[in-house]
Amino acid sequence: MIMNNIYRLFLLNLQPMFLEEPNVEFFEGKDTEKAEKIISSDKTKLLFDFALSASALRDIDSVLEKTAYFFCKILNCDRSSIFIWDKKKKKLWSKVALGLDETIELEPDKGIVGFVFSQKQPIIINDPYSDHRFNPEIDRKTGYKTKNIIAVPLITYLGNIVGVIEGINKLEGEFDGEDLKFAQILSTYAANSIENALLYSEIKKTQEEIVVRLSIAAEFRDKTTYNHLVRMSIYSYLIAREMGFDEDWCEKLRLAAPMHDIGKLGVPDRILLKPSKLTDEEFKEMQKHTIYGYDILKDSDIDILKMGANIALCHHERYDGKGYPKGLKGEEIPIEARIVALADVVDALLSRRPYKEPFGIDEVVDFVKKESGKHFDPKVVSAFLRIIPQIKKVLEKYGVD
Amino acid sequence: MIMNNIYRLFLLNLQPMFLEEPNVEFFEGKDTEKAEKIISSDKTKLLFDFALSASALRDIDSVLEKTAYFFCKILNCDRSSIFIWDKKKKKLWSKVALGLDETIELEPDKGIVGFVFSQKQPIIINDPYSDHRFNPEIDRKTGYKTKNIIAVPLITYLGNIVGVIEGINKLEGEFDGEDLKFAQILSTYAANSIENALLYSEIKKTQEEIVVRLSIAAEFRDKTTYNHLVRMSIYSYLIAREMGFDEDWCEKLRLAAPMHDIGKLGVPDRILLKPSKLTDEEFKEMQKHTIYGYDILKDSDIDILKMGANIALCHHERYDGKGYPKGLKGEEIPIEARIVALADVVDALLSRRPYKEPFGIDEVVDFVKKESGKHFDPKVVSAFLRIIPQIKKVLEKYGVD
Repeated sequence: MIMNNIYRLFLLNLQPMFLEEPNVEFFEGKDTEKAEKIISSDKTKLLFDFALSASALRDIDSVLEKTAYFFCKILNCDRSSIFIWDKKKKKLWSKVALGLDETIELEPDKGIVGFVFSQKQPIIINDPYSDHRFNPEIDRKTGYKTKNIIAVPLITYLGNIVGVIEGINKLEGEFDGEDLKFAQILSTYAANSIENALLYSEIKKTQEEIVVRLSIAAEFRDKTTYNHLVRMSIYSYLIAREMGFDEDWCEKLRLAAPMHDIGKLGVPDRILLKPSKLTDEEFKEMQKHTIYGYDILKDSDIDILKMGANIALCHHERYDGKGYPKGLKGEEIPIEARIVALADVVDALLSRRPYKEPFGIDEVVDFVKKESGKHFDPKVVSAFLRIIPQIKKVLEKYGVD
Repeated sequence: MIMNNIYRLFLLNLQPMFLEEPNVEFFEGKDTEKAEKIISSDKTKLLFDFALSASALRDIDSVLEKTAYFFCKILNCDRSSIFIWDKKKKKLWSKVALGLDETIELEPDKGIVGFVFSQKQPIIINDPYSDHRFNPEIDRKTGYKTKNIIAVPLITYLGNIVGVIEGINKLEGEFDGEDLKFAQILSTYAANSIENALLYSEIKKTQEEIVVRLSIAAEFRDKTTYNHLVRMSIYSYLIAREMGFDEDWCEKLRLAAPMHDIGKLGVPDRILLKPSKLTDEEFKEMQKHTIYGYDILKDSDIDILKMGANIALCHHERYDGKGYPKGLKGEEIPIEARIVALADVVDALLSRRPYKEPFGIDEVVDFVKKESGKHFDPKVVSAFLRIIPQIKKVLEKYGVD
């Protein structure tokens, strides 16, 4: 009977957060309302809500933000900081910690956070200024007064330690055993989500760098630069986003774009490296890099490679049908190739080449406008024109070659 | 007061599953034991345990297995099947469903599962044989008698539907509203974990295919085959695992290995494509592909690329110091390069080349034994010799060129 009540409260408690009303009748008691009120703000509910929402996030900043927020709510404390273990640097880092704006780094064996990390032990300190591990330096810098601290190692369900979470200044009273229990439960969920997010971000970074490095390698003989490939792929991403494609598609385009010229490795040295103007026949041979690229990337199940194949084949097609290799026109050209065609040309114009100085952004805008409907798809052009400020930022960040 | 009790039960309940005993005294009541008994087998506990363990898994099969297991436990039913939505095929698939051994595919709008998927609505059917959506075909095939069914859409916290989970034959009585509530809560956790696992597997597949495709592209002129790169990278992985390296390292090696020869794209056509024997000077030029490859991959923060740089540079070094480009000896050669050196040569021997027939596996074993301590690291050789059965399986799967 007591269990039955607990279940009821537990279920009532969860239901409004997670679920649409199911199509089956369920609770029908007079005490429903009362029970809901009692329980509506409780910690269990917060914990459940945290576990659910955190496991749905993949971006590390969002996971950290959500974790810190729920940690403060559940433990009823003023501040929460999360320190993440960087295996390579052998340091703990934190982005938004202790009221400081900068990212800070800690040694894994110093201070309270270091103690918790190296001992894999939680700790409650209700009188920090008399604890030798406490560093009052940051209080001095920020003018904040640390009154009490709870710190718990972030250990995943499978036993990997990924960092430490710290709560500062309980709003009423001092941290106690119940706080500790809740902190530890939350910390396991948080650690799982943090580990997932870190892994996800590492894989994404790896993927990006591999694509760009190998694409540039493929253009080894053609002296394309790393930054050109990064910039043109970011422009492609930004234009696609401005055109309303979903984030997943834009992200795939960003990874596919750098591969547009890999077919050049099929072009013989005598043509690719010829210092003088190509004959008509040589130029025809050169144009085949679109087909070679397509052959390298085609027939894959992987979206990025499918997209890459289309881009390799069609990034020299023109909207007016005067491009190569097939002379496709307008919407016959896959949209990913129409976007990359513009992004690639724009970045080439903005760059220094052996035969030309870099264009200014205004000259590029004029050129692109003039080519709207000729070389370029007018819809792509108009999206590009709307994001000039973002293009300028990319140029600032990666420089002009 | 009632809340307080609930907390206590809740906490007692969670503690033994998740946590090592913390270093702070906590519960000290006489009723602890009794409360623990009452609660120890309850569904809340199972749900928490499921949420925690599922979010720590990344492999889709493990997630599905764990989900089905907990679903049966929590709902006290005989069987559970999970159907996953394949966006590309526009079908729902299930690996271990309904007592059948094979993977099955369903239309997204047919039967009970299709109904739940397309309507995004849970359902309880306590008399399936009189329900027009029920397909008795599978019962007929398997000899199983379906008595009642609960089916719930798998919808992530962020609202994406990833499939349907179905429970069959409640062990006592019929499925009711409480089952439905628990099923729905579990389904959200499960959906988050399933989505994560699917994404992870897609990214891994993408990464692998990009590396191999671009590596092969880089060797375009050298006619290396796709399958050679796949096989030699699997051999490298298997040898590393047999040598006791951790899974993460072995997996990175598998992705780095195919890049060993990308430096060949820096070698001029007249040498790389020369049909006759190279002069000494040309051979020296050819050897530079190790350095070109290193230059392409070096100075990265990414582990796979760091490893790839070492492999590119050192895969033609020999254990006895007679290799190139530097004539490194024994342990001076990075272990990843010592492994790849053997894997690459082994697969070349096993393959048909313009100038030779494929060796049999016994001939290869003899050759490798003879070269132990000369060309190859004896530790790598002995690991290789222990995994011959696995090498044979790879050969069977990918064929000899």
